[in-house]
Amino acid sequence: MRRRRKKGADERLLSHKTYVIRENVEEFKGKWNLKFENNNPIHVEFGTGRGKFITTLAKQNPDVNYIAMEIKEEVLLKAVEKAVELNLDNILFVWGDVSNIKEYFKEGELDRVYVNFCDPWPKKRWAKRRLTHTNFLNMYNHILCEKGELHFKTDNEKLFEFSLNEIASNDLMLKNISLDLANSDFSENVTTEYEDKFMSQGMKIFRCEAKKRN
Amino acid sequence: MRRRRKKGADERLLSHKTYVIRENVEEFKGKWNLKFENNNPIHVEFGTGRGKFITTLAKQNPDVNYIAMEIKEEVLLKAVEKAVELNLDNILFVWGDVSNIKEYFKEGELDRVYVNFCDPWPKKRWAKRRLTHTNFLNMYNHILCEKGELHFKTDNEKLFEFSLNEIASNDLMLKNISLDLANSDFSENVTTEYEDKFMSQGMKIFRCEAKKRN
Repeated sequence: MRRRRKKGADERLLSHKTYVIRENVEEFKGKWNLKFENNNPIHVEFGTGRGKFITTLAKQNPDVNYIAMEIKEEVLLKAVEKAVELNLDNILFVWGDVSNIKEYFKEGELDRVYVNFCDPWPKKRWAKRRLTHTNFLNMYNHILCEKGELHFKTDNEKLFEFSLNEIASNDLMLKNISLDLANSDFSENVTTEYEDKFMSQGMKIFRCEAKKRN
Repeated sequence: MRRRRKKGADERLLSHKTYVIRENVEEFKGKWNLKFENNNPIHVEFGTGRGKFITTLAKQNPDVNYIAMEIKEEVLLKAVEKAVELNLDNILFVWGDVSNIKEYFKEGELDRVYVNFCDPWPKKRWAKRRLTHTNFLNMYNHILCEKGELHFKTDNEKLFEFSLNEIASNDLMLKNISLDLANSDFSENVTTEYEDKFMSQGMKIFRCEAKKRN
């Protein structure tokens, strides 16, 4: 099904030329450091939503380059507006589909991949659409550098269970697994808009990291 | 603290000479197959409690040898009585301490280790006593054969979280992780006495398997 698009959001999004990349993303493959004009590590969030998470990190870590990827223009616009407001110069927004990431990033080009509160696609026949399906993990593994890591959060227990099993059977090594983030030792948590809402309702947040196996 | 022992239980336990091994367990190290008089795979449960789990498995799987280990004589007696009742000839009971397992089993001698509903030892300073602490995992890894597996269940979320992290950072590879066993695809579950009680109260059971990395 083709999503309905609001024309106004499109135009406003594309007006942020220094931040938003819409076409020919593959031209930057292997050259993102040139685009950022430095050799800082590159952290990417797939499915960035309204952008609170990634813009907060970008503000906190000026020595890291961030790429925020999102397909829905209405929410991506909110994210870009946050970056404009914070006057960030270490973040870019890719208005595109996560399925294409091997065309967008070179092998070993990324230091970290974030996946936060992605669609759980609850039916079994939809499993391949989940952003922690082994097909996606293989792609992350390919584009992550030797010490690269995947950081994953969700409020969905079944998706988390699925993800742990997919990661464990893949070439990635699990670490820092939290079954209840609010009651864990992990103190550096940066929240997303969804996460604030879920946590205020007392819902559990699940989190894990996975690093490439040497 | 030394545990109080009921003298009656001791005597009744030791009267089951064909089933119970109390002294000189190390004499069987590397020779359990001789004791069982066959070369069937050996599965061991550490902390066997009242024995419903391991005796049910022994009944279901006559081609597997089972060793049930428990330090508390009162509960071990209940387990042994179940084996007597079922007339099992593929199970032995070791009345001893899990800390000594490297003295009891030779490298690669076991095909499977079960740890079910072990004491969560909730305080941080007690972490080393948990049967999924990396020190124990290293021992399991040592005594398990090449394709050997650890199967672990608990009702304690914090212990499960701890265990997943310990296993993931060890040389064992996680698989079949369930965050809610009653609502999982795992259909072959054999329950323990504790588990029946917890499940009847609607409590969640956590389970995972871990295999040696080749």
